[in-house]
Amino acid sequence: MARVVVDVMPKPEILDPQGKAVTGALGRLGYSGLTVRQGKRFEVEVDGDITDERLAEVRDAAEKLFANTVIETFDVRVDED
Amino acid sequence: MARVVVDVMPKPEILDPQGKAVTGALGRLGYSGLTVRQGKRFEVEVDGDITDERLAEVRDAAEKLFANTVIETFDVRVDED
Repeated sequence: MARVVVDVMPKPEILDPQGKAVTGALGRLGYSGLTVRQGKRFEVEVDGDITDERLAEVRDAAEKLFANTVIETFDVRVDED
Repeated sequence: MARVVVDVMPKPEILDPQGKAVTGALGRLGYSGLTVRQGKRFEVEVDGDITDERLAEVRDAAEKLFANTVIETFDVRVDED
């Protein structure tokens, strides 16, 4: 089965409270110089082969369902692993 | 600034209610043959260069803070973009 990965991240100009919380926790745990932004990762198993059409379908689904495109960006790619 | 990406996914044997909800919603929206598992993506900006030591530090932080290693696996890699 073929796999497509969709990464969803908050837009750079958008506050990221989860990432901020993680960044703060890292500092308190003694890790310095690390800044974190937190997003989501979707692994989509596609029945059959990944054609350009199938990939367009996943991109369409990502835009409608995986990401809130007002505040998030997303990236769709075929997983080569 | 250098960037390290940490992907956190539910272990294959663990139920993934979020992924299941998304998979169900895809079906209802008319997308067929797509199965989704949902995880998290952390983008870690590292001050200075990424040395093996820095990378080990991020891996350590990922294990302690980003992932719950009882139910999740994680993958740490340097972002080449």
